[in-house]
Amino acid sequence: MAGFWFTEKQTENFGITMKINRTLHTEQTDFQKLEMAETAEWGNMLFLDGMVMTSQKDEFVYHEMVAHVPLFTHPNPEKVLVVGGGDGGVIREVLKHPSVKKAVLVEIDGKVIEYSKRYLPEIAGELENERVEVKVDDGFMHIAQSENEYDVIMVDSTEPVGPAVNLFSKGFYAGISKALKEDGIFVAQTDNPWFKADLIQTVQRDVKEIFPITKLYTANIPTYPSGLWTFTLGSKQHDPLQVDAERFHEIDTKYYTKELHSAAFVLPKFVKDLTE
Amino acid sequence: MAGFWFTEKQTENFGITMKINRTLHTEQTDFQKLEMAETAEWGNMLFLDGMVMTSQKDEFVYHEMVAHVPLFTHPNPEKVLVVGGGDGGVIREVLKHPSVKKAVLVEIDGKVIEYSKRYLPEIAGELENERVEVKVDDGFMHIAQSENEYDVIMVDSTEPVGPAVNLFSKGFYAGISKALKEDGIFVAQTDNPWFKADLIQTVQRDVKEIFPITKLYTANIPTYPSGLWTFTLGSKQHDPLQVDAERFHEIDTKYYTKELHSAAFVLPKFVKDLTE
Repeated sequence: MAGFWFTEKQTENFGITMKINRTLHTEQTDFQKLEMAETAEWGNMLFLDGMVMTSQKDEFVYHEMVAHVPLFTHPNPEKVLVVGGGDGGVIREVLKHPSVKKAVLVEIDGKVIEYSKRYLPEIAGELENERVEVKVDDGFMHIAQSENEYDVIMVDSTEPVGPAVNLFSKGFYAGISKALKEDGIFVAQTDNPWFKADLIQTVQRDVKEIFPITKLYTANIPTYPSGLWTFTLGSKQHDPLQVDAERFHEIDTKYYTKELHSAAFVLPKFVKDLTE
Repeated sequence: MAGFWFTEKQTENFGITMKINRTLHTEQTDFQKLEMAETAEWGNMLFLDGMVMTSQKDEFVYHEMVAHVPLFTHPNPEKVLVVGGGDGGVIREVLKHPSVKKAVLVEIDGKVIEYSKRYLPEIAGELENERVEVKVDDGFMHIAQSENEYDVIMVDSTEPVGPAVNLFSKGFYAGISKALKEDGIFVAQTDNPWFKADLIQTVQRDVKEIFPITKLYTANIPTYPSGLWTFTLGSKQHDPLQVDAERFHEIDTKYYTKELHSAAFVLPKFVKDLTE
């Protein structure tokens, strides 16, 4: 199809709508409906089960903010795991940190990787890097089988529906803690406070039971519901707000800055209330 | 009409869409098309020329962030001017500051005031307060006729189309400077950096020529384009990032906090670049 408008209903009563120049691919994979389209506003865009996942124009926000906040918090991240994230954007940012010797991507749906490589090359381009190991596998199972292995784990999942439902469970966070080394850090995307306040509260409560340092930070993602996205960070030892200034090496970004590293944790009052 | 969907095209190729339970009022005023509707997601909502102006559910963000940042920056704001803002939301926030003896609202379109009072009473409810003077008049002319009169001026306008086009001109900023006292502060909403980067750059350049302290800050407004809104602050003497801690008196808010007062000025890199 060509030249039509696509609407994502972000809630029952509200959504975004955008002009699609042409559909690039549509497929029901083993896990979800995958659609890739060329949009007039955002460049090529990936949808899973009808929800915007990433676009060429605004992808940098999500990928930078998932990756750089925990990686600059950890004093020497060498081994990193990305759960989900088959588009490769988080991996691309992870590799900007010279300390990282190995970045493992565990994506359940190989089709996401395949079509991201084809239609989102600027995002997926580092998946072939020699420091990267790509596994098409169940992230929940991978976590369950890992112990004392990773410095940083990033959960780049869809919303808690379909294949991602296990990735928002207390058992998963306990598994992450076990898979992390003794000073490990994890971060997960945890949706938005306008429409999913309950989810944020639940995740904060669950993560706090497992990680002594649990904090929420935000970023503006214009193609995601409400434009205000949250990330939950759980850490065993290192506080993201107590990072030595000299740790912030130069890095090429479009959203993240070392000043924003801290400011992103300063929450609007109604969001802060969800964490208490 | 009842039970339909309304779409605001925020750009030629992108927009938001929402379920309207019922239209409350539609009128072509002397200045613009005014629509008031009960939405299923956001409560009652005011539209001018087809653009979302404010809603019951998310109005607090805009109104708090316009008002409290300059009012806490000024050591003793007594006389305040709001240009535009006929819904009364900024005035409501201004009155939370006990130092303010008089708040003048100059709104060009009396119909905005009339229908906000009727359908947005929680927002417009303080327009009758004895500390408030409401003038239905041209804000540009009011500014031109004022000299050394106000401590803080807030420009709560629509986008630079229709009646607001003069409110984004260098002549207007010069007039504001003259209308302010020698240590006055002004703030204006200056749209979003995703779709209106040029506008932000132009305003920053123009305001910098007139005000020695010019800064940009942001807030998340989910019903506005991109969800990331900017405000340009111009100040003759007082720096919003150099506010004495004891100045922050207790205030009842849902978005603004004294920590966010500073954090809101920490910009994503691509936004910071627009100010340099």
